[in-house]
Amino acid sequence: MTMTLKQAVEQALVADHDRLAAYLKLETVSAQHREIDETVDFLEQAFKSVGATVTVWRDVAGSHPFVFATLPAGPAGNADKTLLFYNHYDVQPPEPLDEWQTAPFDLTEVDGKYVARGVSDDKGELMARLSAVKALQATSGLPCNLKFVVEGEEEIGSPHIAPMVQQHAAELAADVIVWETGGKDADENFDITCGVKGIMSFELRVKTAEKDLHSSLAAYADNAAWRLTRALASLRGLDNRVLVEGFYDDVRALTVEEQRATAALPFNETTTRENFGLKRPLVTTDPVAALVNATTMTINGLSSGYEGEGVKTVLPKQATAKLDCRLVPNQEPKKLAQLIQAQLVRIGFEDVEVVYLLGEKPFRSKLTDPFIQLAVKTAAKVYGDRVKLVPNAAGTGPQVFFGETLQAPIVAFGTTWAGSDPHAPNENIRIADYQQDAWYTAEVLRDFGVE
Amino acid sequence: MTMTLKQAVEQALVADHDRLAAYLKLETVSAQHREIDETVDFLEQAFKSVGATVTVWRDVAGSHPFVFATLPAGPAGNADKTLLFYNHYDVQPPEPLDEWQTAPFDLTEVDGKYVARGVSDDKGELMARLSAVKALQATSGLPCNLKFVVEGEEEIGSPHIAPMVQQHAAELAADVIVWETGGKDADENFDITCGVKGIMSFELRVKTAEKDLHSSLAAYADNAAWRLTRALASLRGLDNRVLVEGFYDDVRALTVEEQRATAALPFNETTTRENFGLKRPLVTTDPVAALVNATTMTINGLSSGYEGEGVKTVLPKQATAKLDCRLVPNQEPKKLAQLIQAQLVRIGFEDVEVVYLLGEKPFRSKLTDPFIQLAVKTAAKVYGDRVKLVPNAAGTGPQVFFGETLQAPIVAFGTTWAGSDPHAPNENIRIADYQQDAWYTAEVLRDFGVE
Repeated sequence: MTMTLKQAVEQALVADHDRLAAYLKLETVSAQHREIDETVDFLEQAFKSVGATVTVWRDVAGSHPFVFATLPAGPAGNADKTLLFYNHYDVQPPEPLDEWQTAPFDLTEVDGKYVARGVSDDKGELMARLSAVKALQATSGLPCNLKFVVEGEEEIGSPHIAPMVQQHAAELAADVIVWETGGKDADENFDITCGVKGIMSFELRVKTAEKDLHSSLAAYADNAAWRLTRALASLRGLDNRVLVEGFYDDVRALTVEEQRATAALPFNETTTRENFGLKRPLVTTDPVAALVNATTMTINGLSSGYEGEGVKTVLPKQATAKLDCRLVPNQEPKKLAQLIQAQLVRIGFEDVEVVYLLGEKPFRSKLTDPFIQLAVKTAAKVYGDRVKLVPNAAGTGPQVFFGETLQAPIVAFGTTWAGSDPHAPNENIRIADYQQDAWYTAEVLRDFGVE
Repeated sequence: MTMTLKQAVEQALVADHDRLAAYLKLETVSAQHREIDETVDFLEQAFKSVGATVTVWRDVAGSHPFVFATLPAGPAGNADKTLLFYNHYDVQPPEPLDEWQTAPFDLTEVDGKYVARGVSDDKGELMARLSAVKALQATSGLPCNLKFVVEGEEEIGSPHIAPMVQQHAAELAADVIVWETGGKDADENFDITCGVKGIMSFELRVKTAEKDLHSSLAAYADNAAWRLTRALASLRGLDNRVLVEGFYDDVRALTVEEQRATAALPFNETTTRENFGLKRPLVTTDPVAALVNATTMTINGLSSGYEGEGVKTVLPKQATAKLDCRLVPNQEPKKLAQLIQAQLVRIGFEDVEVVYLLGEKPFRSKLTDPFIQLAVKTAAKVYGDRVKLVPNAAGTGPQVFFGETLQAPIVAFGTTWAGSDPHAPNENIRIADYQQDAWYTAEVLRDFGVE
């Protein structure tokens, strides 16, 4: 009797356990440029161990290397179809160290969980994908061509993804793309996510004088902090709506499929309020729809004048706010920055400068795409009826460079659960989720090959 | 031929030069509690050297000592009249040290100026007053009873002035009070100032969650920084007017004398704009009237979320603003804080907490008081027609505790000029101003005795 794919995945995971531990042992903190070369060497060997052809791209100026690996379809597979995986090999810094209950870079099993920095974001996922490859090779062979691209700067904002995709578009060419990150939500639904919101980060800067003044001179002198707060207050209503003229002009309405998927998403307000200790009413009556398709404008930070203990009678010469907007199709980051500046000038805040910091366009795959339908259908084999199709995440990632350049749908899924705490101490995944994700990945590849 | 009073003052200043240097040599930085006892000992000896009876008050809990000295009127003087001088013996820290062109605690003569920490604020003034006493003793004798009270915490906000005045009201009793600080303005007018604005310092604090959130959750979660900026924007109009209901109810209109004095004050907008590098129009069409009698509300500082370099996609859990209001007669600090909180609650900002930090009531002497008339008239002898009567300073000081408790008018004058830079490196006074101030002080005392 031949092995089932599920059994083959289980065997591969046992065999690959030490490789997972070795990958996590590397302290690949991109913000500190730590152990980058060691990690690239490790990945080169890991890909070669499953028979891949590996190229390390060091030709993107100023970037940590990209690891690119390819595997052809097996003899029984479909050589006309190609699937590209996107992952990243870098992790967040482990600090604060004293809050870890285990050594951050030692893979440790605690109560059915794997605990280590990067185990959920995103080293574990890539290793699960390699174990899925090994399981397929041990059974029916690879069902399609595979490509992997692994970057080393995701945790510092993927600053070189755009030029990399431009320079290597031909090598990256694929029919479909599987993105990093994903897993189970707070209600134990397995999420298949088909896009991301965009982002536009900017500062508002005001300078009213060359020196800080004594606050008694407020009798005649204007105040940068007052200018800033008035300008800010003009940008957003108490109902969370952005008050900038033209801001919503490019938002396209949700399709029927997107509406249906959105309406089926859960949102547990009680749990959410408890998790974050929210003290205010929600700013929307439909949080699920807002997470999918609301543009936001968020003050990330305010800074002006004296911020220490007690009292200092100063009239500050300058004031700064940092903000980000989360964008939905088809909003354009730079255009929105221009609209904000134009409105501020129009209503008398010509002294309030909009400084564009960064932008990334939103991306959302067509929910009617056959690969997305396949991903949902295949998920039922592994996750039963606890599967949710999410039109896009509320967060942002550099999907648009892949999706638009390669003209391919993108789905994201992975190994996390609601308590994974990526970026925080004691980052973890549940071992059962890890096994399910590897199995699901193998099933998706097989179904994609024969589809 | 007997000496004139002016000649006697000049002789006294020569004789007292080393005492001025010795006083400035003491590093009496109250914020660091440095050389407090040494300075108190020095003052005790200095007062005794002119024949004063000295008491050091150490009975105000938690306070640096107060030095209290009394001198009776001379045989030809008027023993029914008493004048009280208020000064402080503490100074600001000398930092930043590398911006000093001389050693901060060494009295140095540079281009006709005395340079040292405290020479303008306010050690020089007290020494000029003692030289005036010596000059009077050397000529016609003391024309009235004198009292001196010298505190050691002015530069840290005079936190113990109120209980001191309460505990020692009987000893402090006087007909008139001469305050510290004053001198010549940017147009070389000698200012005689008859009061101070009050102050009310407070914070606005908002907390919307127990944790900072990822900014993607702005789709449903409210934001402390948005709450704060909206609340702030509700408090003040672009015309600098405070929009809090009842805020101006207790402001009493200027008297005819106050109006006349105010209208006579100069304001050089061009110089002011250049000195501070002001980039905005003034917030008032009548800066002189505003400096005297406008209530202000100033944001001293803003703080929330991420304030570092670059981008952090955070939705801040809390936000804080520091503010101060400058108050005019008869506004009450605590009442105004209550009005602000009440209005915020009334218009829906019940989550924005007003935290009262400190308050000091305004004080303004009656401009019709005979002593103030005398101070102006006497000034003509020394300063000619370049004398201005200022109803009150735009800044704040603890005059009200003296003025109300002792029921006496207060005038402030001194040795500074527009370039004195108190609190800054290279603090200085012009030697000619120092001589004029000592002479003027002696003349005021003599005229007060015979008035």
